[in-house]
Amino acid sequence: MLALSEFDVIRQYLNRPIASRSDVSLGIGDDGALLQCRAGCELVVTMDTLVSGVHFPTDTQAAHIGHKALAVNLSDLAAMGAEPAWVTLSLTMPEISTQWLTDFCSGFFGLADVYGVQLVGGDMSQGPLSITVQAHGFVPQGLALRRDGAKVGDRVFVSGVIGEAGLGLQIAKNLLQMDDLPTREHLLARLNTPQPRLELGLALRSMAHAAIDVSDGLAADLGHILAASQVGATLSLETLPVAACFQAIQTSVGGWQQPLNAGDDYELCFTVAETQVTALHRAKSELECSITQIGVIESQPGLRFSHRGRIIQVQPKGYEHFRGKS
Amino acid sequence: MLALSEFDVIRQYLNRPIASRSDVSLGIGDDGALLQCRAGCELVVTMDTLVSGVHFPTDTQAAHIGHKALAVNLSDLAAMGAEPAWVTLSLTMPEISTQWLTDFCSGFFGLADVYGVQLVGGDMSQGPLSITVQAHGFVPQGLALRRDGAKVGDRVFVSGVIGEAGLGLQIAKNLLQMDDLPTREHLLARLNTPQPRLELGLALRSMAHAAIDVSDGLAADLGHILAASQVGATLSLETLPVAACFQAIQTSVGGWQQPLNAGDDYELCFTVAETQVTALHRAKSELECSITQIGVIESQPGLRFSHRGRIIQVQPKGYEHFRGKS
Repeated sequence: MLALSEFDVIRQYLNRPIASRSDVSLGIGDDGALLQCRAGCELVVTMDTLVSGVHFPTDTQAAHIGHKALAVNLSDLAAMGAEPAWVTLSLTMPEISTQWLTDFCSGFFGLADVYGVQLVGGDMSQGPLSITVQAHGFVPQGLALRRDGAKVGDRVFVSGVIGEAGLGLQIAKNLLQMDDLPTREHLLARLNTPQPRLELGLALRSMAHAAIDVSDGLAADLGHILAASQVGATLSLETLPVAACFQAIQTSVGGWQQPLNAGDDYELCFTVAETQVTALHRAKSELECSITQIGVIESQPGLRFSHRGRIIQVQPKGYEHFRGKS
Repeated sequence: MLALSEFDVIRQYLNRPIASRSDVSLGIGDDGALLQCRAGCELVVTMDTLVSGVHFPTDTQAAHIGHKALAVNLSDLAAMGAEPAWVTLSLTMPEISTQWLTDFCSGFFGLADVYGVQLVGGDMSQGPLSITVQAHGFVPQGLALRRDGAKVGDRVFVSGVIGEAGLGLQIAKNLLQMDDLPTREHLLARLNTPQPRLELGLALRSMAHAAIDVSDGLAADLGHILAASQVGATLSLETLPVAACFQAIQTSVGGWQQPLNAGDDYELCFTVAETQVTALHRAKSELECSITQIGVIESQPGLRFSHRGRIIQVQPKGYEHFRGKS
């Protein structure tokens, strides 16, 4: 049992000798990090905070928290078409537990190492458990995927399967009984260890008009693309790539709320010109995930849903952290 | 009384049309910001979190919290000799109060505007009050001020006056009675609205061997320079620029603990070669703050204190956020 000062903790857990990138002149240990930007590229930065009890259940394993805190930020880089480079981490914890920190770091650095991302700085504080990560990446000048580039006639795609993390959350909260163990584990993994779609993001640089990551729910996130691009869309509900265990409830219209509104999937939703669809399908075999065409961009504002040829109503409501009154 | 969604809040309070820098291709409102790095420069990044009740008293005014959350990060850029460019902000609040947000933003953007710093992204969450800011700046390749460059024979300097923010904290906590109102206000301002020494940092690029900002206390922070540079130092206590109200207690050796160990001053401590001291004094008139020579770098490791010609003991203990046991 050692008394650990903040500095000892930083040294022991965060300032690892591996993953030393050549574009890091000075990493952890000074007032700031010194970094070499890439010529001909724009720097992409994104910051996300996870608060215990708000963004993850309080009993979530530390390794999952570490993975997810990084993954949600890398997912934002993916949605911009950026290649990740560096991250910073502010970790606020009620107390220092070496076991908790070891587990957190195994999740965090396990994912960082997959993508050659280096932790270059941050902060450590005492307080209610909360993790803020900023991710930094690069995209060649002018090639970033933005929300505001969708064009009428574009096809709307989504990667992977949607709604699974939402089911995982219901399982984690004991609101959903799932007796099939492999399915249960799969859904929990989708909640706890989301995989950022970075390869897809890179592939889309030359093909997509607009992209976003699905963090708040497909309907809400596609809604951001539509608003920023000043267009609308119709999604074809029967084409949505939903969890296999959803098939039973698809005949009920109410059942669509879940995959459309559940957050935390960290898939990419993007639009491509019709003329690019063939090229996109050709690129599919080299991607880390499936992609599915789910709708079309239209001039009429708003998001509509078609089911077996009829336009139907679905109440879209993505997760928002604040719904209170001022 | 309006119901405010997270997106409305971000739009209303944070995505201001002013302070639009030409090096920001895309600011708030997408998955990430798109930024243009400066050729021939290194990017400097630093991240600091303020937790309510840990880094500031829970009854601190929102405007002061906003100012300080940014100031402590700009202070880190100053200590690196960097010119600030962009910031990101993650704001975690128990509830949305438009009055609190208005006040917070007045403090935050009031300081940002002084230095032409643009908020380019971040996050807003529900949870215990906590503010994480990352600041980004630029320094010409190879000119950054680091902790590890102090050389034997260097003179040690500190800017401004030390220990005042610590006295302000004691006043704020009702641990110190200060009847002289102007002094009381001055000390509270030093605690609540620290001024980052950015001009000094820029001036030191060509003169200082090493620099750090005094956030944890002069003794602890100078100790970081000494450790990183593998040198030692002797400080001359009678030269320390302490608050005027300290004079009465300076004859007592115990009185030195406070200015040496009090944190939150956000002055710069730096070392310069003896041959640069004259140039430094010439530059003084153009700086925003005073500078005082307080000691000398020596080969013998460790930090020593001299008082009227004798080496005396002072217990150095900077503020560390964790002192618990693992």
